[in-house]
Amino acid sequence: MQNILIIGAGRSATFLIEYLLKYSSSNNCHVILADSDLSLAKSKLNQSKHATAVELNIDNEGLRKELVRSSSVIVSMLPAHMHINVAKDCVEFGKHLVTASYVSDAMRELNETAIKNDVLLLNEIGLDPGIDHMSAMKIIHDLKEQGAKINSFKSFCGGLVAPESIDNPWAYKFSWNPRNVILAGQNTAQYLENNALKFVPYSRLFATSETINVDGLGTFDAYANRDSLSYQIPYGLENIQTILRGTLRQNPYCKAWNVFVQLGLCDDSYKIDVSHLTYKKLVESFLPNDDLSLIEKLQKYCALDNESLPLIKYTGILDDTQINLKPSSPAEILQELLERNWKLMPHDKDMIVMVHEFEYELNGKNNKLQSSLVVKGEDSKYTAMAKTVGLPAAIAVKLLIENRITLRGVHIPIMPELYNTILLELESLGIEFKEKIS
Amino acid sequence: MQNILIIGAGRSATFLIEYLLKYSSSNNCHVILADSDLSLAKSKLNQSKHATAVELNIDNEGLRKELVRSSSVIVSMLPAHMHINVAKDCVEFGKHLVTASYVSDAMRELNETAIKNDVLLLNEIGLDPGIDHMSAMKIIHDLKEQGAKINSFKSFCGGLVAPESIDNPWAYKFSWNPRNVILAGQNTAQYLENNALKFVPYSRLFATSETINVDGLGTFDAYANRDSLSYQIPYGLENIQTILRGTLRQNPYCKAWNVFVQLGLCDDSYKIDVSHLTYKKLVESFLPNDDLSLIEKLQKYCALDNESLPLIKYTGILDDTQINLKPSSPAEILQELLERNWKLMPHDKDMIVMVHEFEYELNGKNNKLQSSLVVKGEDSKYTAMAKTVGLPAAIAVKLLIENRITLRGVHIPIMPELYNTILLELESLGIEFKEKIS
Repeated sequence: MQNILIIGAGRSATFLIEYLLKYSSSNNCHVILADSDLSLAKSKLNQSKHATAVELNIDNEGLRKELVRSSSVIVSMLPAHMHINVAKDCVEFGKHLVTASYVSDAMRELNETAIKNDVLLLNEIGLDPGIDHMSAMKIIHDLKEQGAKINSFKSFCGGLVAPESIDNPWAYKFSWNPRNVILAGQNTAQYLENNALKFVPYSRLFATSETINVDGLGTFDAYANRDSLSYQIPYGLENIQTILRGTLRQNPYCKAWNVFVQLGLCDDSYKIDVSHLTYKKLVESFLPNDDLSLIEKLQKYCALDNESLPLIKYTGILDDTQINLKPSSPAEILQELLERNWKLMPHDKDMIVMVHEFEYELNGKNNKLQSSLVVKGEDSKYTAMAKTVGLPAAIAVKLLIENRITLRGVHIPIMPELYNTILLELESLGIEFKEKIS
Repeated sequence: MQNILIIGAGRSATFLIEYLLKYSSSNNCHVILADSDLSLAKSKLNQSKHATAVELNIDNEGLRKELVRSSSVIVSMLPAHMHINVAKDCVEFGKHLVTASYVSDAMRELNETAIKNDVLLLNEIGLDPGIDHMSAMKIIHDLKEQGAKINSFKSFCGGLVAPESIDNPWAYKFSWNPRNVILAGQNTAQYLENNALKFVPYSRLFATSETINVDGLGTFDAYANRDSLSYQIPYGLENIQTILRGTLRQNPYCKAWNVFVQLGLCDDSYKIDVSHLTYKKLVESFLPNDDLSLIEKLQKYCALDNESLPLIKYTGILDDTQINLKPSSPAEILQELLERNWKLMPHDKDMIVMVHEFEYELNGKNNKLQSSLVVKGEDSKYTAMAKTVGLPAAIAVKLLIENRITLRGVHIPIMPELYNTILLELESLGIEFKEKIS
């Protein structure tokens, strides 16, 4: 009997855990679910006979190594910076690891010893990164096989709210780590447009969003993600003229978020003593002392307009109510306020939208291909986010348990050996792309 | 005979070295000048019989400790992050240290052991920080002694070019570390204005400069320095309504620099492969692809106007000439270009301007006090920058050699015991503030 070790029982692990519990019950495997919160881990196991909950502080090296050593495959759903010690244990004991996080430099350095120890460290196999890689690579390989010349590749993804659950003017709620939403985009975005390098600094990122039309769903705002250029080589798109990856939001989210950026409210680099500050006073402290009203100042200095005004007002950031926090960064103050406003209610459905847009020449003709994925959640527990992040990783675990992946070393899922099987099974689970060629 | 160890023989050490050579020759002391560049160190000693040049790589722990152990007072003119190991050696061997740099957290942690080992670690005793502390504290203590209530304190300093050496539209040249000029202001500025906290993010810093009139010299632009609030407690200004520290530039420097900030050219966080880029193409890569000309785009997106246009053009950043650099950050590319344009020529004179502005109530009357310092350099070697940075430190070394400072632990020069003697001697060396009360 093989053990599957899942580290991290949080929000985005719900579907992963259920998939692997079900798989274990019919395949003579045993799931060990380790989390720092034992009762959380227990609650996720639904009293399955094929699973054990374990309390694990990730810095408890002894227990961590013991758990890794006694398992066949390990999947880490920890925050990204916590994977590395688990990965080192996996290499040491010759066990495969699956994560949904970006490959860190430290992870990359394990490549050679992982190969030597017959280990696969498979990363970026969630939603974004994950499903984006697999679905895009499938199209890229298909087009190349047909002899197409790909000129443009744009890819967008958003973790949004389903239309039926929209009840605030931002049309947004948190379906994943709120801190990442607040700090999003704080690096210069880099991409390629018509053979020209493009750099967009944070201060202009949300002001220069583009409009994306998704077949059947309407239009979305999209802002560029940090480094699209880094995908050119891994995707085999050396001669492409346009490559851009971005994040989707409902209009006019970007315009309103730009007001926060211009104000300076997303800054996480210093703490403010807020003991004598109201939210309104906080906003005023980011604006010059002149004769204008607060709204007029926001219009003059922070690009506030009639469209963004109701969104800004809705958050409560203009209210004259005391801030009840210990000394906090502007970003932390904003996050606490938005977490109150953007909470997914028990019956709210979230929605994942992913879109790839290709332009290519085939047989002397220019073509456009749009491939889009829409997944809606069931409620605030069974979210589309947890489903699309967790299932690709869960399927990879299954394939590793069944010795159906021969890759070794540090990898991301960009080769047919991985994406063909996984995309096929994802389709059967309702995660299916629609293609439109024009 | 006592040894004085000077570590660092660079640009800003010229006056310091000459002062201490002269002092040593008439006071039976010996100067050891240590630098990684032995020939530079030798050239600064003018074949003095009272000095020795030593080649020292600062990571050579053995030699560094030996030099510290054999000296009575050590002055480090190294870049700020290199002081800490020297400071630890000083504490270990019971020697005093003088630096012109801000107190780092690591330095602050040495306070207790320094006191225990009868050692003074005196920092921030250059120009800014240094002369600013001493001259401001003297006025603050004087006003308080008279019974004045200080309501406002603004302090500005600029390392500029003397009017007779201005030959470019920026009216600016590098008299100190160019990298620091390029990266200046990249943290949210924090200050107090009429009892209200004020925060100015980098993206609005250079757009919101204020105008300062210096008696007899005309007007300057001033932009706020990063954290003025941190001076409230050390300066004893707990109940002040306005406290602001800033940097002076000639008008319209700030307006033109703001164009670089808006573009994103001061970003040092990523490298660009410039092998196929001209300066003009680089600028275009930071701007959207639309039908406007480059100048029109800069006007629309980066606040370029008729005043700033000639300054931007002058730098060559709009020229269609190839960039000949290895992969570099935008900030590095800009720095290399400006170093060609803003080089202090042999006979150029630089100019230091420092201004303190106080508003206070005394005997029921509101008063304004402006205290200003103007120091001009002699040429590109004997700069006002080197003079004002080096002489305060040099005088402090002398006082320590003569056992005239009883302070121990980690300090900055804000107490009368230090500033009275030093300011008096600086006056005799031509570094003299003028006061005007209105």
